[in-house]
Amino acid sequence: MIIVMKAGSTEEQIQEVVSLVRKLGYQVHLSTGVERTIIGVIGHKDKSPIQSFASLEAVESVIPILKPFKLSSFEMKGERSLIDVDGVTFGGEQIALIAGPCSVESRDQIVRIAHQVKQAGAHILRGGAYKPRTSPYSFQGLEEEGLKFLREAKEETGLRIVTEIVAIGDMDLLVEYADMIQIGARNCQNFALLKAVGQSKKPVLFKRGMSTTVKEFLQAADYILSEGNPNVILCERGIRTFEDSTRNTLDLSAVALLRNWSHLPVVVDPSHATGVRELVMPMARAAMAAGADGLIIEVHDRPEEAYSDGPQSLRPDEFKECLREVSGIAAAVGRRL
Amino acid sequence: MIIVMKAGSTEEQIQEVVSLVRKLGYQVHLSTGVERTIIGVIGHKDKSPIQSFASLEAVESVIPILKPFKLSSFEMKGERSLIDVDGVTFGGEQIALIAGPCSVESRDQIVRIAHQVKQAGAHILRGGAYKPRTSPYSFQGLEEEGLKFLREAKEETGLRIVTEIVAIGDMDLLVEYADMIQIGARNCQNFALLKAVGQSKKPVLFKRGMSTTVKEFLQAADYILSEGNPNVILCERGIRTFEDSTRNTLDLSAVALLRNWSHLPVVVDPSHATGVRELVMPMARAAMAAGADGLIIEVHDRPEEAYSDGPQSLRPDEFKECLREVSGIAAAVGRRL
Amino acid sequence: MIIVMKAGSTEEQIQEVVSLVRKLGYQVHLSTGVERTIIGVIGHKDKSPIQSFASLEAVESVIPILKPFKLSSFEMKGERSLIDVDGVTFGGEQIALIAGPCSVESRDQIVRIAHQVKQAGAHILRGGAYKPRTSPYSFQGLEEEGLKFLREAKEETGLRIVTEIVAIGDMDLLVEYADMIQIGARNCQNFALLKAVGQSKKPVLFKRGMSTTVKEFLQAADYILSEGNPNVILCERGIRTFEDSTRNTLDLSAVALLRNWSHLPVVVDPSHATGVRELVMPMARAAMAAGADGLIIEVHDRPEEAYSDGPQSLRPDEFKECLREVSGIAAAVGRRL
Amino acid sequence: MIIVMKAGSTEEQIQEVVSLVRKLGYQVHLSTGVERTIIGVIGHKDKSPIQSFASLEAVESVIPILKPFKLSSFEMKGERSLIDVDGVTFGGEQIALIAGPCSVESRDQIVRIAHQVKQAGAHILRGGAYKPRTSPYSFQGLEEEGLKFLREAKEETGLRIVTEIVAIGDMDLLVEYADMIQIGARNCQNFALLKAVGQSKKPVLFKRGMSTTVKEFLQAADYILSEGNPNVILCERGIRTFEDSTRNTLDLSAVALLRNWSHLPVVVDPSHATGVRELVMPMARAAMAAGADGLIIEVHDRPEEAYSDGPQSLRPDEFKECLREVSGIAAAVGRRL
Repeated sequence: MIIVMKAGSTEEQIQEVVSLVRKLGYQVHLSTGVERTIIGVIGHKDKSPIQSFASLEAVESVIPILKPFKLSSFEMKGERSLIDVDGVTFGGEQIALIAGPCSVESRDQIVRIAHQVKQAGAHILRGGAYKPRTSPYSFQGLEEEGLKFLREAKEETGLRIVTEIVAIGDMDLLVEYADMIQIGARNCQNFALLKAVGQSKKPVLFKRGMSTTVKEFLQAADYILSEGNPNVILCERGIRTFEDSTRNTLDLSAVALLRNWSHLPVVVDPSHATGVRELVMPMARAAMAAGADGLIIEVHDRPEEAYSDGPQSLRPDEFKECLREVSGIAAAVGRRL
Repeated sequence: MIIVMKAGSTEEQIQEVVSLVRKLGYQVHLSTGVERTIIGVIGHKDKSPIQSFASLEAVESVIPILKPFKLSSFEMKGERSLIDVDGVTFGGEQIALIAGPCSVESRDQIVRIAHQVKQAGAHILRGGAYKPRTSPYSFQGLEEEGLKFLREAKEETGLRIVTEIVAIGDMDLLVEYADMIQIGARNCQNFALLKAVGQSKKPVLFKRGMSTTVKEFLQAADYILSEGNPNVILCERGIRTFEDSTRNTLDLSAVALLRNWSHLPVVVDPSHATGVRELVMPMARAAMAAGADGLIIEVHDRPEEAYSDGPQSLRPDEFKECLREVSGIAAAVGRRL
Repeated sequence: MIIVMKAGSTEEQIQEVVSLVRKLGYQVHLSTGVERTIIGVIGHKDKSPIQSFASLEAVESVIPILKPFKLSSFEMKGERSLIDVDGVTFGGEQIALIAGPCSVESRDQIVRIAHQVKQAGAHILRGGAYKPRTSPYSFQGLEEEGLKFLREAKEETGLRIVTEIVAIGDMDLLVEYADMIQIGARNCQNFALLKAVGQSKKPVLFKRGMSTTVKEFLQAADYILSEGNPNVILCERGIRTFEDSTRNTLDLSAVALLRNWSHLPVVVDPSHATGVRELVMPMARAAMAAGADGLIIEVHDRPEEAYSDGPQSLRPDEFKECLREVSGIAAAVGRRL
Repeated sequence: MIIVMKAGSTEEQIQEVVSLVRKLGYQVHLSTGVERTIIGVIGHKDKSPIQSFASLEAVESVIPILKPFKLSSFEMKGERSLIDVDGVTFGGEQIALIAGPCSVESRDQIVRIAHQVKQAGAHILRGGAYKPRTSPYSFQGLEEEGLKFLREAKEETGLRIVTEIVAIGDMDLLVEYADMIQIGARNCQNFALLKAVGQSKKPVLFKRGMSTTVKEFLQAADYILSEGNPNVILCERGIRTFEDSTRNTLDLSAVALLRNWSHLPVVVDPSHATGVRELVMPMARAAMAAGADGLIIEVHDRPEEAYSDGPQSLRPDEFKECLREVSGIAAAVGRRL
């Protein structure tokens, strides 16, 4: 932390701040500029209480120097994490592929699509049993019945299962049925849920919130990691901007940044990011080129009848074509599908 | 809903869409333009499944016509709601005033500040016992002990208590200790929590998410209302934008819009919206002029020692001065403090 | 400027940066933390070249300490500027009122509306003769003929005239016809135009760009001031955000911030900020309460026939009612209409 | 256009709107829903005046149906444009590569870097002689002297020259010295400048504004095209969002969208988009995978001494490595460097 004093602060005001800093157990380093005096706060402890010094009359601003995340930082581990989801590895040379419909709609629907995405090359089946819908009047998911259908799809195809958690109370059920638990964008800073998921060892597909900065996202990941669950896979799924021709704006710089700053694997969801079927393929290719460790893509064989997210779902043959294209990019960056 | 067909759609493609619409139980109204054919979808039922028609080859886009919220809409009630919080009314001529520190830090701190804000004119005491902090390494709140201190502050001052819920599991405790339960911005679309809070009758201070549109905010309010809790008070607390000199951007147009579109009372939080003490007073005045039914303001007598949000907290004498100024504006718009 | 070295930088790397800083003529202040070394750059000169030091291998980041604007800063003047527009003062106790249609459409239209807004209480007539329209196929303005009609409106009513400049080549004409020249949001960082306008003494109504931060806005104002024109009036007109129920998001915190940071008067445009007629009145009131020195409001007596911006135009009687309401707020904050 | 009437509109109110629509020369198509009546406006003419109907009492909203751009639309041409810049083609199988420093700083600097980027594989040299800087106190460019240095760099290396225009008055000079004229992000909606550039046939590198939507960007391109200059090359360079770890947010969905909606070539600027050297390479790869027709990359051999944009400049060897990586991606998508 650096405390910037206002121009014209008196020696007395500066000393008052210095002694407050020392009282909290930090060392102080004073630097006197032409117009401003700057107080460096030195020490290992959590420096967040220093933020409140900005409310002192003579203080102009308090500026953080260090990155605010810890356990998720690359420095903490020194090498990339490999995360195993029942035999599927995230973070290695091979790209992990998650596909399936937005919602589990029926036993027939999910098993049928599971076969289709498996045949196309997917490793993990996605499908929501508990749906966080914007409107309470929209389809909210089949709940436990949906989880059972997902398990049947797994038994028939061997695909691993990822599905979303929306309430802490569903945790035990989800741990039983799923191989990987998804935390959706709207719950990215639902810290109680993050702590609950952190108390299990179940792999977590952790989606960035639509207005969560990269730094905040990694601090949120620290909530899961600090509870003891190291199996966190980050997912960029688009952020909210003024652009209205796409559902969100896919932030691929964040993918490169997350891979620089963190040891955790990074997956991209081009379906939710764009909301437009024609854009899913080019964005899947671009995600691969940006360094993504995996993809999660919505696939539905009858998108016009989908209960949710039909407009952004690829049909199985389009998904196959998409993987073919992604495969070429993966090879160009030293990865493989 | 309106379905816009692509230019050059064939009669057969148009009829295919028409018959799909009818299969879902809606009536159809066809309109043939110079370049495009447009299909109006008519009927009372939830039209969200129609969105998926955008995935049909010949469909260019699907455009919603009606506002997507229902129970929270002004039309649904036809008059403004008055919501009672243990004798304090929101939505009437009198402005409801909520004040207090960001966090409950100790018995002494909360009781002391309670007396100060009561003396200045506040009706309700705020103070977080469960804190949703961006970093897991920051102070997380005193939890139940904090609730007890809040109750002691109520007993000593008569102020009503509002405090934040962060997990469904804390609901019973909060119902016992608080007069009003706050849902924070990060949980605005935590639908499981909204449903849980909706099953009580306890008044809810419901904060808009930092990237939640006004329409989505009212749909989220519908989650609480549709579970049976009519006591929802909306709170504008700033949205996330590119502007970096304030913590968020206070969206006062939203206050006027919410009052036009909804029967629910609207409160403004100028403290979190700006994050800058000097801006709290002018924004409190502006909120009043925009039509707000209440204010929630952070007050701390030693902001430089606050565990959180010190930089945006008013000191008690500043809070008093703020209310004096707000009072003049209230009178000018036919309200009173 | 503060240069933050990466953790683990060697003494040699630190000294390399120190000597580069000294070579540019600044003094250096070294501060060694637990993990990072920080180099303070001290001196009066423009420090922007220091930004490029971020490209050095051992440098983690370069952080500016001082605010980047100068001539527009409050410190530079030490008191509020009063700016005279042919007898109408901006920045004093009295609120300056600008009103009129988006575009000059005909002699009859502008003269008619001029009488109406004059009668309601406006001091200055607005009306575009050169229109910066999003589409080249939309009405582009009557150009010099429009300026003549504005002059006739002035002759008939005594209202001063403000109209927009879109090209440097029109400067002489505009100086001849107008009392105040408007720079629109899309030209906020058209620095060539700012310099041209700065070489006249004609008062400038300078609109904030839709994605211009407050700091950038004041730097842009410095372009005009540093060419020798002190008559700059800032205008907040809404910024671009994700919210889609309003045309832009009115940023009233910026109004309070601009008045704290700068000596220049600040005007608010609630018409363009919201794009919705029902919101103009509450936002005009809120702007006044936030400390605005003036208002610019679109008024049209036949908004449904307006060539542009009909949906946000008040009718003359609504404008009168708006001023009546604003007047009450002005009184409450020690101002008058 | 579709006009949505308010619920409960009377037959008389509906007929009033219908007759206003007809008076403007359009046909009308009425559609009566359960709650709302919808009026389709049919006809070939510019429908922007219809927007103002939203100001009628009984009208709820006016919704555009057609895309608002014309000459830049893919439908208008039916095939992709190939644009020739003195022998370098944009839009074909081969990727066009633009590189060089942010600013021309001296004859030696620009000629030296020209040789370096030429040797690495670039086709076109970039370098600003007129610089649109945020602060008037920053380096503003060498102006005509800079143009002369660029010409010398061309004579020595054979590289074509692209440089930015900031004022209409410089047009003749720029046409003389440059092979391609750049319009920067801040001038994306400086329509007077667009018209001026449209009156030449000189190829234009047209950068998207930082808060310009894709639809607005193509309307702005229509300004250039409709003046008679068909040689427009679009450039995505990042948009402004809340994310603060990158200078802007690169919007690669926009690249795919622009290629779907328009016949014009699309170039990506990963340097300005990210502002961070480490992110330039992954974003260059991702741009290629998304379908970009070219890249513009900042290169400086002494970035720490650059007058501007040092932190985001690649060194020549990094640029060479970047092209090697991009080359692999290009091959994977059927293109070549």
